[in-house]
Amino acid sequence: MDPYPKPLRDLISQLKRLPGIGEKTATRLALFILADKGTLPEDLAVTLKTVREQIRLCPVCFNLTDRQKCSICINPTRDQTQICVVEEPSDVLALESANTYKGLYHVLHGLISPLSGIGPDDIRLAELMERLKRTPVSEVIVATNPSVEGEGTFHYINKMIHDGGINVTVSRIASGIPMGAELKYMDQVTLASALRYRRGIKDI
Amino acid sequence: MDPYPKPLRDLISQLKRLPGIGEKTATRLALFILADKGTLPEDLAVTLKTVREQIRLCPVCFNLTDRQKCSICINPTRDQTQICVVEEPSDVLALESANTYKGLYHVLHGLISPLSGIGPDDIRLAELMERLKRTPVSEVIVATNPSVEGEGTFHYINKMIHDGGINVTVSRIASGIPMGAELKYMDQVTLASALRYRRGIKDI
Repeated sequence: MDPYPKPLRDLISQLKRLPGIGEKTATRLALFILADKGTLPEDLAVTLKTVREQIRLCPVCFNLTDRQKCSICINPTRDQTQICVVEEPSDVLALESANTYKGLYHVLHGLISPLSGIGPDDIRLAELMERLKRTPVSEVIVATNPSVEGEGTFHYINKMIHDGGINVTVSRIASGIPMGAELKYMDQVTLASALRYRRGIKDI
Repeated sequence: MDPYPKPLRDLISQLKRLPGIGEKTATRLALFILADKGTLPEDLAVTLKTVREQIRLCPVCFNLTDRQKCSICINPTRDQTQICVVEEPSDVLALESANTYKGLYHVLHGLISPLSGIGPDDIRLAELMERLKRTPVSEVIVATNPSVEGEGTFHYINKMIHDGGINVTVSRIASGIPMGAELKYMDQVTLASALRYRRGIKDI
């Protein structure tokens, strides 16, 4: 017999729907929420409700926003001649945290993955083409993950842009050995890629 | 500049208040919640709201319940002559999952901890004494954790019951080497305790 009352069991069940949260963690979180002396459950419930009501996709770059356009697209100090293509909104966050890139973004919301039945029409590729025709830029940087799907999507984008007759440089984010990592712990594919795409001294 | 819109940032902030959830996990959970095609955020918000409205403490044993009394106290098949004293409601769940104990519980909601300023009056000890006076039992099993606070609380309960002139056996949950563990990886205190409280063949 379940020794926990139904409302608590319900909360545990809902928390278990979150990624990486199993029975034990969900129970710990639910008991923590229940024991909270402040307004944690109410605050969390309110933010859960408002997040879906207020967050939409930017009609230009498809990043997340609560305004008409996203904060990057409306920022006039951003370099309007570069578009960095990423898979997901969280990739924008990661790149922004590096504080290096000052151009615009385009969020695909997925990668081409024939095995999962995701084709070019299922992600925001047509919107990227329309955007490039509407407002020409000088460079498209494809920053999808260095996975089979990420590489495949990069090649598709490259072909799509050149077949579409758009005059723009398409580049790929560098892959290689991460800063601080050790060669001896790197996998073979990363090592092969790091050797293949080695830089000449003049590039440093 | 924060590249995430405010409602999403708010949700991340609220999720970070949960134990063991840092910036990265909170962001991952928030993006998962946002991307959910179903009713996850709404369901979670509803359970968060109802859990505190409907869950109260059982007036007899102080376990969690959504009824007048908890499911264990109202169960007539439970052994009414044993009370197992635990620190928290989650300890009841753990013991129930072992499916061995068939008596009643008493949840202290804390342990005596002079260093944290928690004295005997801050936990449900007076209620335990009242309960023992009101409905005498044959055994009180103290199943607090084998920590400094847990042991101290056990000794306090033992003294309190005997000073109060209540005729009841007070016992302590066994501590020793967990099933399946290896001696060579055990800490010294556990090994010392396991040796000290060794059983004679007749007890097995």
